[in-house]
Amino acid sequence: MKGRIFSGMQPSGKFHLGNYLGALENWVKLQNDYECFFSIVDLHALTSTYEDTGKLPEHIYNMALDWLSAGLDPEQNVIFVQSQVKEHAELHLLLSMITPLSWLERVPTYKDKLQQLGEQGKEINTYGFLGYPELMTADILLYKADTVPVGEDQVPHLELAREIVRRFNYLYSPQRLIFPEPMPYLSQAKVLPGIDGRKMSKSYGNEIPFAAGPDELRARVRLMVTDPQRIKRSDPGNPDVCTAYTFHKFYSAGQLERIAGDCRQANIGCVDCKKRLAENMVSALADIHQRRQNLEANPERVREILAYGAERARKVAAMTMEEVRAAMHLA
Amino acid sequence: MKGRIFSGMQPSGKFHLGNYLGALENWVKLQNDYECFFSIVDLHALTSTYEDTGKLPEHIYNMALDWLSAGLDPEQNVIFVQSQVKEHAELHLLLSMITPLSWLERVPTYKDKLQQLGEQGKEINTYGFLGYPELMTADILLYKADTVPVGEDQVPHLELAREIVRRFNYLYSPQRLIFPEPMPYLSQAKVLPGIDGRKMSKSYGNEIPFAAGPDELRARVRLMVTDPQRIKRSDPGNPDVCTAYTFHKFYSAGQLERIAGDCRQANIGCVDCKKRLAENMVSALADIHQRRQNLEANPERVREILAYGAERARKVAAMTMEEVRAAMHLA
Repeated sequence: MKGRIFSGMQPSGKFHLGNYLGALENWVKLQNDYECFFSIVDLHALTSTYEDTGKLPEHIYNMALDWLSAGLDPEQNVIFVQSQVKEHAELHLLLSMITPLSWLERVPTYKDKLQQLGEQGKEINTYGFLGYPELMTADILLYKADTVPVGEDQVPHLELAREIVRRFNYLYSPQRLIFPEPMPYLSQAKVLPGIDGRKMSKSYGNEIPFAAGPDELRARVRLMVTDPQRIKRSDPGNPDVCTAYTFHKFYSAGQLERIAGDCRQANIGCVDCKKRLAENMVSALADIHQRRQNLEANPERVREILAYGAERARKVAAMTMEEVRAAMHLA
Repeated sequence: MKGRIFSGMQPSGKFHLGNYLGALENWVKLQNDYECFFSIVDLHALTSTYEDTGKLPEHIYNMALDWLSAGLDPEQNVIFVQSQVKEHAELHLLLSMITPLSWLERVPTYKDKLQQLGEQGKEINTYGFLGYPELMTADILLYKADTVPVGEDQVPHLELAREIVRRFNYLYSPQRLIFPEPMPYLSQAKVLPGIDGRKMSKSYGNEIPFAAGPDELRARVRLMVTDPQRIKRSDPGNPDVCTAYTFHKFYSAGQLERIAGDCRQANIGCVDCKKRLAENMVSALADIHQRRQNLEANPERVREILAYGAERARKVAAMTMEEVRAAMHLA
């Protein structure tokens, strides 16, 4: 029997190639081995961006486009928007009754993120923000997922989820465990830098949007930082300090030795080297771009897919809630 | 146009005559002047009794019996069980995103009740318990109630609700206010003592159950404490220190002077005086007992009434949530 995965991403409108390699590419592989529930978690997005929700519909639509063009199959997986399944809120509320405040206050990311966003002038010390990992627990439990692909920083969230599962099972279903304890699936995260060599982030302006088509890809690669010591075309370069070379590692497999050699011996200039990179990226991402173009030509299709996914998610969620309500003796 | 009321009671299984006079009797009057939503708030009950929910169904059923036998009209009012309307959880979650933690921590009843229940050995320092007034706000807002009958101790909860309303309106609907600011309706609380003269409470064992029929009423009144100085039948009594006399004030209007005189002059013994009280109570509560008997003969009817109420509540709640979701730009 296949394991079951729940995973979500916030529709922040900032999805870039680094995010794709860091997580989405992995989902595309996981869909073959697991029964997957992938959710655009707009309610989670509200925990930090409740003040400005005007772009949420656009961000949700774009995230669906990102996922589908990346190759997530909407038949094979259940792809849906979190807020369209009310059971997330319902289970979140019920779990809140059995979750000690201290469990939430102790989550390491809590104080960190409060501070970090506080420094950006964001006041998010809300009840909802404290409840973030509680909502994440509800997300996972609603589909009885046993496996959750996460980054290192989210491992404590899953520990909390397991604590809550044990408490729920102990209180309400000691005989027949309703929820499995969800385990983290830690994939080796691929970290793609931004075009200036720092961490890729829209806030640095150094990102390559995942939605970038061939022309935008080429334009972004042209701006990429190379070895700063290599001033003239005839200077030998050092690929180890070159951001373009780091990208080559992702997109020019099999040509790496030649590329490094050409650089060190000044056989090729940075401009041409980046052209080569750009073309490799364009072809590596060709299928994704093609799928995106097809979907963009038919926006209704994306909405249908999300509606279909919500309906399927709701069915599973409703069955879980029936068990939960019965176990808790709610009418 | 009629104002709209939301009010709720927790199904604790402890409803007694004091509770009836303190609140329910008032509801029965209010139903003529307001459009009323009366909810058996089982989700609120979970904030303090999550560990033992086995009796919840029974308590909910009994509370419905209490309300209906008291004379709440299930056509005129919307009478329903909170957890049967998922929108309470949904709005609670959305409001949680805009509610600063400190607003909840500052609610005066919060630390008081934590301590009080802590002394009883109840560990309720949960995320859900902190969110109690948030859930109460969602309850009220879901039906756009402008009026909430409350006791003095709940006034701060309504202040919080108004703060949340203002914040919501400011953030999401500055042009067209979605929610009115709910105002407290403070009725003069009638306080009936227990049969031993202390506060009436099931935990003291001094209560008169609201469900008590004539025989139980008589038995409870027989146990009532009178003037402790009046030892012999021939001793003159002092009605001012007599619990039975306090009850006479509620149930023997028009006969008070005579009753007090008979006591002071030892014209009547305590046993007979209490018999008189018991018969007055039996006849004052006769309609209520009659309605209860009719309903008890047909338990299915009570369940139908609750299902009907939930359906009507859901319709109103769903309309509100449509507005809320649109204002917050949720799909």
